Amino acid sequence: MMNGAETLVDTLLASGVDTVFANPGTSEMHFVAALDRRPEMRCILCLFEGGTSGAADGYYRMSGRVSATLLHLAPGFGNAFANLHNARKAQSGVVNIMGEHASYHLRYESPLKGDTVGISQAVSHWTRMSADATQVASDGAAAVTAARSMNGQIATLILPANTAWEAAVGPALAAPPPALRRPSAAAIAAAAQALTRPGAALMVDGPAMYTDLGHVAARIARKTGCRLMGPFFSARTRRGAGSLRMQRLVYEVDPNLQIMADISTLVLCGAQRPTAFFAYPGKPSLNEAPGTSVLDLCSIDMDIAWTLHALAEATGETALTEADFVPLSLPDLPGGVLTLDKVGAAIAHLMPAEAIVVNESITSGAPLAMATATARPHDWLITMGGAIGAGLPTAVGAAVACPDRKVLCLSGDGSAMYTLQSLWTMAREGLDVTVVIFANHIYKILHGELAAVGAKPGRNVARMFDMVEPRLDWVALAQGHGVAGVRCVTTEEFVAAFARAMAEPGPHLIAIEC
Amino acid sequence: MMNGAETLVDTLLASGVDTVFANPGTSEMHFVAALDRRPEMRCILCLFEGGTSGAADGYYRMSGRVSATLLHLAPGFGNAFANLHNARKAQSGVVNIMGEHASYHLRYESPLKGDTVGISQAVSHWTRMSADATQVASDGAAAVTAARSMNGQIATLILPANTAWEAAVGPALAAPPPALRRPSAAAIAAAAQALTRPGAALMVDGPAMYTDLGHVAARIARKTGCRLMGPFFSARTRRGAGSLRMQRLVYEVDPNLQIMADISTLVLCGAQRPTAFFAYPGKPSLNEAPGTSVLDLCSIDMDIAWTLHALAEATGETALTEADFVPLSLPDLPGGVLTLDKVGAAIAHLMPAEAIVVNESITSGAPLAMATATARPHDWLITMGGAIGAGLPTAVGAAVACPDRKVLCLSGDGSAMYTLQSLWTMAREGLDVTVVIFANHIYKILHGELAAVGAKPGRNVARMFDMVEPRLDWVALAQGHGVAGVRCVTTEEFVAAFARAMAEPGPHLIAIEC
Repeated sequence: MMNGAETLVDTLLASGVDTVFANPGTSEMHFVAALDRRPEMRCILCLFEGGTSGAADGYYRMSGRVSATLLHLAPGFGNAFANLHNARKAQSGVVNIMGEHASYHLRYESPLKGDTVGISQAVSHWTRMSADATQVASDGAAAVTAARSMNGQIATLILPANTAWEAAVGPALAAPPPALRRPSAAAIAAAAQALTRPGAALMVDGPAMYTDLGHVAARIARKTGCRLMGPFFSARTRRGAGSLRMQRLVYEVDPNLQIMADISTLVLCGAQRPTAFFAYPGKPSLNEAPGTSVLDLCSIDMDIAWTLHALAEATGETALTEADFVPLSLPDLPGGVLTLDKVGAAIAHLMPAEAIVVNESITSGAPLAMATATARPHDWLITMGGAIGAGLPTAVGAAVACPDRKVLCLSGDGSAMYTLQSLWTMAREGLDVTVVIFANHIYKILHGELAAVGAKPGRNVARMFDMVEPRLDWVALAQGHGVAGVRCVTTEEFVAAFARAMAEPGPHLIAIEC
Repeated sequence: MMNGAETLVDTLLASGVDTVFANPGTSEMHFVAALDRRPEMRCILCLFEGGTSGAADGYYRMSGRVSATLLHLAPGFGNAFANLHNARKAQSGVVNIMGEHASYHLRYESPLKGDTVGISQAVSHWTRMSADATQVASDGAAAVTAARSMNGQIATLILPANTAWEAAVGPALAAPPPALRRPSAAAIAAAAQALTRPGAALMVDGPAMYTDLGHVAARIARKTGCRLMGPFFSARTRRGAGSLRMQRLVYEVDPNLQIMADISTLVLCGAQRPTAFFAYPGKPSLNEAPGTSVLDLCSIDMDIAWTLHALAEATGETALTEADFVPLSLPDLPGGVLTLDKVGAAIAHLMPAEAIVVNESITSGAPLAMATATARPHDWLITMGGAIGAGLPTAVGAAVACPDRKVLCLSGDGSAMYTLQSLWTMAREGLDVTVVIFANHIYKILHGELAAVGAKPGRNVARMFDMVEPRLDWVALAQGHGVAGVRCVTTEEFVAAFARAMAEPGPHLIAIEC
């Protein structure tokens, strides 16, 4: 006779979920015991729940596979919340298993009693609390299906302790997700016609940013004469030599208004309507010019592949040429005084083909993005929900998903501090991640945002924006977590350290101060 | 002309809230600018939001004063959630200021858009989103009043960016909280009568655990012959020489069933009904014996002081004697092989009068609690919501509240890893906190809980419960955050390190492996 927890573990395995990013607590013991029965389930410990959800996000983005997180009841889920928010915005499919008190214990006020359903619903697409042990297997299967639906969702199964330990029957199997919605033939025809207008643009996102679906979009653009565009925030972008040229939006409002000023028709295919990251006094929320005709042909939760192929059929296609793709062009290895430009050049020069770059370098990132644009082919992941602290955990998940690829995690120091416990998981699992910390010792983006609202910094701003007195010692922080770290203040030091990290598998941390 | 944010800062100051534990983000720039106008507002930066909410909890417990947290919209609040849960269970009054997009921006899908109201309501007693700039001041005043109501509440004010930057009139002043509810005269009389029955017990909590209200309760107990009891989890307890003797419950279910077996009448005054921390198969949720008559005379949100005095009037009182109080009794300084008992003895021997002990040492804590029971007088704070990662932040808040007192933070290694960024805030603010890390490199409590459910650990349990391969290096972690750290493996090393920390103000970290 199996218990509910055992049927859940077997359901996950039978349904193809074989990786759990875990931070268990007292209420999940039977689930832990059930995991222990199945060594083929890979359990990866994160020393903070934000590490689990960020890892599940990175894992999905690089593998397309749903993993599970194991989270303690309400407050534990709270710790995972920020990176679940980021995962949601990345359309990553994740199954959260959240513990809960035994159902009959919930009427009493115990320390850990909290609003498990409320906090789950604040970020999950799908939330269910198992009603009894015999339903845990089918609930788990439904969670997996939900996570795989709509191009990737956050699904949270809340497991009251008694439903884990009471008798159940056997595992279930996740049903395939429901078919994705598709636009009507009339909508396809209208979009095809619209793309031939002067000032038309096709904006794509999702799989078009890293698979050959982007080529389909480019052939449509060639044929119709429209502009092909992508947003600033994409969950995964194929970059470097051989990747498709595409005009991308940027972070700031004003340049985006310029970029979109002469677009009169905007067809969205798998992309959100371009919106300012944040509203500013006197500036518009939307990036398109007033009066632009916006056709949301295919929402992000619809069938993007089918839609692009149907659109290509409706418009016709024109073959792409070499000019549509990015050529390989590596900068020389730099020397002299270390600058962000030189860091970018060194990384671009040295990073191997098929690297996975997790970029949360915020204000330090622009020269990097520029320098690596024509580097060897790579994938580029950024924080999709604007909640910093995703970089290190996402790198963990990407490295677990792709053990044969080099992962670079480029992070601001402020961002990395949120979830630095992920360094330990990199060491524990021997993950091939090179972390580069841009240690400028300030929240530079906040200084920029403050300037953008017209304020000049005084004492309280300095106390809240500047991470000085004391400065963080990143070599010590790395060592504390079991990762070899080095601090670089010259270009030569950085080039040597980065080259060594590229040559030696396993986790490395390089802190640069410039 | 002031803007909404400026009226809010001035409202907080006028209402007696002069400390902000902050982790600002891009959506709070006008509030930051408004804080910058008022250097008399103390802004304390935490490098992770869990540090802000835990600090606000510790600050309230030791000062009785409400502080504010400054949190980024939904995911930032998520990071603060676990320690807000703990603060809620501690009945700490906290005002959260959560940023939000401009109200007109919320209709669009931007990266940081999230369910700010939903996540707030999952942990806050009071949630309000300001509707326009002219209402921000009165909303802020209402938040302060709410935080001070019902013996301490979590109040969250959500501040859409445009309500911060648009024109407002001027500050408001928080009204006094509404009068606390009191039991009826009949209820007092019934309780007074019940306490004279054989097998009667009076269980108190809240201010009775650390103020002279406890003496009132003890005089009632002396007069009526009832037992005087306290729960295991109390937000603040006065301990050591001169404190009141009182029977306390413990963590585990079985001993509590024993302790309460011969109680037939239980009168609760400011205490929750004793409940198991967690349900176990075949064990009861409640600690009292079946058939016990339970009178909830005064709920935790009612007027505990008035109730105890009224009860004393109804029952009469008998004066206390020396035997009712704990005598000073210091263990000798230990030597030889380091054990948890010796750590406790050394701490008890060396810690100064009026120390504040923040105890999140979990499984390492029992010998400590025993050894310090007769030490010099001190206050003892524990994690009230069962969500680990409260210790270091609570110590920050306690040290800010009581700059003239020594703060000891005793933490398990697993717990401390959740919010270790608080070490940096200790260094930045020069807080007089001595952190003792019990570095056993395992989640020992989880091994205990697993054994309690009858399972034997295998490979996946080892991968999830044991923080080895690699071991955390706490001296390096401390140094990374700017705190001097030392590792002790012998008793002599620990005694020397702890004595030095007691003699030298400012933050210290001592990691012990035994």
